[in-house]
Amino acid sequence: MSRVKRVLYPGRFQPFHMGHLRVVEDLLKKFDEIVIVIGSAQEAFTCQNPFTAGERLEMIDLALREEGINRNKYWLVPVPDINKPLAWTTYVLGMIPRVDAVATGNPHVAGIYRWLGYNVIELTLYKPEIYNGTRIRHLMTYSDEWINRVPRSVAEYIIRINGVSRVKKVCYG
Amino acid sequence: MSRVKRVLYPGRFQPFHMGHLRVVEDLLKKFDEIVIVIGSAQEAFTCQNPFTAGERLEMIDLALREEGINRNKYWLVPVPDINKPLAWTTYVLGMIPRVDAVATGNPHVAGIYRWLGYNVIELTLYKPEIYNGTRIRHLMTYSDEWINRVPRSVAEYIIRINGVSRVKKVCYG
Amino acid sequence: MSRVKRVLYPGRFQPFHMGHLRVVEDLLKKFDEIVIVIGSAQEAFTCQNPFTAGERLEMIDLALREEGINRNKYWLVPVPDINKPLAWTTYVLGMIPRVDAVATGNPHVAGIYRWLGYNVIELTLYKPEIYNGTRIRHLMTYSDEWINRVPRSVAEYIIRINGVSRVKKVCYG
Amino acid sequence: MSRVKRVLYPGRFQPFHMGHLRVVEDLLKKFDEIVIVIGSAQEAFTCQNPFTAGERLEMIDLALREEGINRNKYWLVPVPDINKPLAWTTYVLGMIPRVDAVATGNPHVAGIYRWLGYNVIELTLYKPEIYNGTRIRHLMTYSDEWINRVPRSVAEYIIRINGVSRVKKVCYG
Amino acid sequence: MSRVKRVLYPGRFQPFHMGHLRVVEDLLKKFDEIVIVIGSAQEAFTCQNPFTAGERLEMIDLALREEGINRNKYWLVPVPDINKPLAWTTYVLGMIPRVDAVATGNPHVAGIYRWLGYNVIELTLYKPEIYNGTRIRHLMTYSDEWINRVPRSVAEYIIRINGVSRVKKVCYG
Amino acid sequence: MSRVKRVLYPGRFQPFHMGHLRVVEDLLKKFDEIVIVIGSAQEAFTCQNPFTAGERLEMIDLALREEGINRNKYWLVPVPDINKPLAWTTYVLGMIPRVDAVATGNPHVAGIYRWLGYNVIELTLYKPEIYNGTRIRHLMTYSDEWINRVPRSVAEYIIRINGVSRVKKVCYG
Repeated sequence: MSRVKRVLYPGRFQPFHMGHLRVVEDLLKKFDEIVIVIGSAQEAFTCQNPFTAGERLEMIDLALREEGINRNKYWLVPVPDINKPLAWTTYVLGMIPRVDAVATGNPHVAGIYRWLGYNVIELTLYKPEIYNGTRIRHLMTYSDEWINRVPRSVAEYIIRINGVSRVKKVCYG
Repeated sequence: MSRVKRVLYPGRFQPFHMGHLRVVEDLLKKFDEIVIVIGSAQEAFTCQNPFTAGERLEMIDLALREEGINRNKYWLVPVPDINKPLAWTTYVLGMIPRVDAVATGNPHVAGIYRWLGYNVIELTLYKPEIYNGTRIRHLMTYSDEWINRVPRSVAEYIIRINGVSRVKKVCYG
Repeated sequence: MSRVKRVLYPGRFQPFHMGHLRVVEDLLKKFDEIVIVIGSAQEAFTCQNPFTAGERLEMIDLALREEGINRNKYWLVPVPDINKPLAWTTYVLGMIPRVDAVATGNPHVAGIYRWLGYNVIELTLYKPEIYNGTRIRHLMTYSDEWINRVPRSVAEYIIRINGVSRVKKVCYG
Repeated sequence: MSRVKRVLYPGRFQPFHMGHLRVVEDLLKKFDEIVIVIGSAQEAFTCQNPFTAGERLEMIDLALREEGINRNKYWLVPVPDINKPLAWTTYVLGMIPRVDAVATGNPHVAGIYRWLGYNVIELTLYKPEIYNGTRIRHLMTYSDEWINRVPRSVAEYIIRINGVSRVKKVCYG
Repeated sequence: MSRVKRVLYPGRFQPFHMGHLRVVEDLLKKFDEIVIVIGSAQEAFTCQNPFTAGERLEMIDLALREEGINRNKYWLVPVPDINKPLAWTTYVLGMIPRVDAVATGNPHVAGIYRWLGYNVIELTLYKPEIYNGTRIRHLMTYSDEWINRVPRSVAEYIIRINGVSRVKKVCYG
Repeated sequence: MSRVKRVLYPGRFQPFHMGHLRVVEDLLKKFDEIVIVIGSAQEAFTCQNPFTAGERLEMIDLALREEGINRNKYWLVPVPDINKPLAWTTYVLGMIPRVDAVATGNPHVAGIYRWLGYNVIELTLYKPEIYNGTRIRHLMTYSDEWINRVPRSVAEYIIRINGVSRVKKVCYG
């Protein structure tokens, strides 16, 4: 339908880190546009999902602008869970511009989109032992080392909204 | 994956009537097997949806056996609504054996499966002014004329479960 | 939290028309940024909601760019219905950047956000007998007059995706 | 399990009126306790459901106290819709103390509880052309005649929360 | 709106124990009325949630009456989960009388209500190593020591409904 | 209503194994027909639920035919989770032909159907340390020993749809 080539990149982005940024940059070498779906959009204020979808939307936008990526190259779309994995594939597709492929490092997501007949790009994560959401949230509870694992504008945003004390509270009470 | 050719035929079947039976017979001339999805499966005891999905399951099974259709030729699968039209396409596909096409007379259903890239067979309804669920339910509230618009075994089943007085009650209190 | 002043503007945008555009322009005179929430995001291929949320996202983006509105001034966020009106207020707020007010012409939406304690701007619709989604969808089924009721780029987009024949089909079979 | 005889009385109570009060009084002649389920508890700020479940809870409590009914005789339990009629029967039963019967004037509700094997008391409504929620909400939009169709304490409560202007707004914009 | 000062106290109360009772008594020193929300109201017959919401409603009512707390001082409202944390805040607020504050020992609940702009009272739990739902349910599977950790009337109620054998079964099969 | 004696047998059947088959055969000695409910029907492509409900439907049908069980003796009905345990009882009952008893080895399921007043047959599992879904899925990730724990036709089906590599991927990435 459209000549623009687009790729869907779904994730939870709790928070958006340097590994995610690397993926976005790589995908933009092969596609004209990227559609970043912020999954589990209904979640917030838990240890696994401390940030609201709106906050993650702002974080990612800040990070991509900081990186100098043109605003016309990316779409940011929060999508809530529906607890129906196969139905979720088309739930997402209905909320975004038409895409030509799905990029993911998650075997469940790869499986369901392949089942649907979609072209799936299986991502090799960039230094997953360092750039890893669970690890970064854990670091936030006791050290400053998390800061250089996320883009500078994301770190500033998290600090501005008191995100560190939030993570400490929802993880350890 | 499988060499058996199957077609999906979704409907509400409130109740299953001669028009539906005609569609099943026609589709079985072109496909090895038919997957009949009983939609709005969570509904019952309303004027628009008087019968439970379980009752509709029994009705359809009785009608197809009465017609001498081999039990290996059809699958009966109740599927509830999820109020998410595009997601519903894959919700259904996840609950049934793999199909090669979707047959429907409903433009909404045709639209969503075509959007998904599926082969859609648009059905021309057989005498829709006579074989029509709304019309048949309405007839049930004041006349016996509904009886010869449904297969004999369906009429007997409805009478046995006191379906006529149920329809009267939920339609007119 | 942030010094940027933002306003939430929710709607279904089936399709985005000149009346909507006028509202966006007016709101951007009083606020730094507008958050356009595309409601009933799960709907598509019905007479009342023919276009997917992804298509509406593209339409609105095209219209605002055509109008020369800077991409930094607006956020486009599709949000599905949850059939829980009061809960929907915070469901939406969780998926968008922090806003200072809600602008709406819908008394139900005005009521629930005011109940929550939010600053509500009640919109006076611009020529509602002309710029009206229901009216425009109806026009699409039999005339070309719909075309100059929507921004040029929206009309082109609808034509390119065969939206007119889709509306005819889902409205009249 | 318990020797106390209880009856379930579900309704929407938009608002609670003299007809409802009459039912409660009649049922308390035959049962030790009544469990009033406030249905469609998630709804509010629409023409059909203007009041929140919390407001309806307060209204009913005021009306029963005004009538001198002992607080030990009644339970007030808001229950949201789940859009699954048969499942709703046990959804409700799980949220209330054990009951011995269900009293209703609604043939759909009577049907589903009878299907489940419950003892159903079919209510004959008291002057339904006068004591009728739809009629009373309609009156609220243009006259004071609604006032003597509801208990005095309910009228006062509605006036105190500006309920009349709310009904006007959500019904006529 | 109302001059009565009310506080919301949400919990699962599986079962209601002396620690909960202590909180209720403390809150009633500072507020006129308490609204006890029985969360996860849809759950029952699991190891983590053995009792139905209706049973928990009865338990709490018995315990508060036993303690001599006037029935006019408390509201008991079961509320099911909706798996949408931020939306849950207003889902609850719509089902209860207006409150002035939220009291909780749960950092997730504190976080979401504070996000919404509510006055949150962070509870310090009373001897949490003793008065603790998980601990009490565990004790129920092998000892009588659970009995003096709950109000006498709650213990009697649990015994009367065979709650101990239920907990054993759903926890250990 | 019907003189045919039927039993409900719910399970996840991930995959259908010799232990399940043994239960079916035993139940058919006491009942005329068995209604096999394929639970968690919305799940697929996870380590705990690798197969779609449609695939499980096909597997069970193959296994029962292989065993020579007449197609008139069993009903196969996929039912999704609704995350409302007590409501799930009647959700299931609405989607199946009327049954006289429920057979289960799961204490939660036994509890909720007994609460509803149903006749529950508590199953003693057949060699549960060998014929066990979790164990069999685990075996599939590193050995061929799973093969003789499931009916031959099920093993062939799983191999044909590349089920082994799917289980490896969704369990270990």
